Amino acid sequence: MQIGIIGLGLIGGSLGLALRDMKLIDKIWGYDLSEQNAREAQELGLVDEICDFEYIKEHCDVIFLAIPVDAIVATLKRLEGVGAMTTIIDLGSTKAEIIASCPPSLRYNLIPAHPMRGTEFSGPKAAFRELLKGAVVVICDDKNIGESHVKRAVEIFSHVGMKIVFMDAASHDHHTALISHLPHVISFSLVSAVLSEENRVNIVNLAGGSFEGMARIAKSSPEMWLDIFKQNRQNLLNSIDEFEEQMAACRKMLENSDWAGLYQWMSEARKIREIL
Amino acid sequence: MQIGIIGLGLIGGSLGLALRDMKLIDKIWGYDLSEQNAREAQELGLVDEICDFEYIKEHCDVIFLAIPVDAIVATLKRLEGVGAMTTIIDLGSTKAEIIASCPPSLRYNLIPAHPMRGTEFSGPKAAFRELLKGAVVVICDDKNIGESHVKRAVEIFSHVGMKIVFMDAASHDHHTALISHLPHVISFSLVSAVLSEENRVNIVNLAGGSFEGMARIAKSSPEMWLDIFKQNRQNLLNSIDEFEEQMAACRKMLENSDWAGLYQWMSEARKIREIL
Repeated sequence: MQIGIIGLGLIGGSLGLALRDMKLIDKIWGYDLSEQNAREAQELGLVDEICDFEYIKEHCDVIFLAIPVDAIVATLKRLEGVGAMTTIIDLGSTKAEIIASCPPSLRYNLIPAHPMRGTEFSGPKAAFRELLKGAVVVICDDKNIGESHVKRAVEIFSHVGMKIVFMDAASHDHHTALISHLPHVISFSLVSAVLSEENRVNIVNLAGGSFEGMARIAKSSPEMWLDIFKQNRQNLLNSIDEFEEQMAACRKMLENSDWAGLYQWMSEARKIREIL
Repeated sequence: MQIGIIGLGLIGGSLGLALRDMKLIDKIWGYDLSEQNAREAQELGLVDEICDFEYIKEHCDVIFLAIPVDAIVATLKRLEGVGAMTTIIDLGSTKAEIIASCPPSLRYNLIPAHPMRGTEFSGPKAAFRELLKGAVVVICDDKNIGESHVKRAVEIFSHVGMKIVFMDAASHDHHTALISHLPHVISFSLVSAVLSEENRVNIVNLAGGSFEGMARIAKSSPEMWLDIFKQNRQNLLNSIDEFEEQMAACRKMLENSDWAGLYQWMSEARKIREIL
């Protein structure tokens, strides 16, 4: 089996490293629009060999798209014409718009997947072999995909050590807006508030553990997150509403010195300990 | 030198463990209102010996208050009458109200301090020797304190490996509202929004790294944080305003599909990488 990975950053590079351990795979080809990324990926051994886009399109049995979600939409159009046996797996963080804009001739080939794992770092140097191990990967709208393609994706993901969850694309985008995309909006907002009010010295001295933890994902790539916010705009706006409702309730209790209510509200939130 | 630690939870217990390595100290006494905490602290070896409150008040050279901030206010009143040579170090997360409510006869003895380190866990079992090592500790309002008491506190904190920062209490409460207390309000709000909308299965599957990181501090003790919110209420309300301004700006750019503006805003926030 010949594998092609388009996009050799954090996700694509980590996938390449993990797949290099798989005996089912003959060779892993890599392509990146950025020549520097491609060179770094080769030096780091993230894939077996660097090639061009056309080579992957023509020769690979499985093609992974590990690029920003707007680039996935554009790249799927360039992949029109691949053979019926070619499996295309996109690893974008949004799913409905990618599926809606996928050329009809490729809907049979395309596995819309989303690995629920990342770090705030990006690029080939951020990749590491263990990133995807143990992570959930969501596979969306599987009933429209050729069965052989689904089986192939399931085999590869499970061999990497990932936990597979099937979900329709609308649900995926709805739930990830709240659980994954909203936290990024919040982190960017918190960091913006702190940076606009505080000097470097106070931030370094007082950051402690809490601010540093909350600020971590504001270090993420703005390019990648802009695309996600674009594609999942309406769900994200709804999630912001839900968050702002809670924040307004908290503010009201603070204003009214409603300490019993505030204690109750915090105790309810603390039940997250039973889940995570 | 005889040390007394009142409150044997995460902070008091970790301090006890760290001080047990110090050759300058003859004995570390511990007291906790909860008999179970006291027993656990003894079993875990967090202090040399458990005793009652009065013993610490009468015999210790340095008394640490590692209890919730409202309890610090009450306990300072109980400490009236200690000798002029007794150093009292409170480790609360707010400072202005503690100083304002301190009996005048103790203002000379009291070091209002705030170690900028914690975890979401509490109680004696959460304590560990390395917690405070390398952490910043803020010492407030030092001009009203007896010089010998300041020197003693500086020696102890620096021997534990802490980084000392001097700051007036009003500044401390203003800055920590934004950098430390606001992140807790945000985390409680995010978790409340997610718990009210999502079931356990979706949370477990989709939490990835970002939600888990943002939700961590919502697992903190509501008792402790309620007291902090009470004592720093007005600064906290101002910080919420500043955060909500940023969130509203983000929402407006999303609503207007102002992608250039959103990209710029995220890129500005990302500059936190240069600081943290």
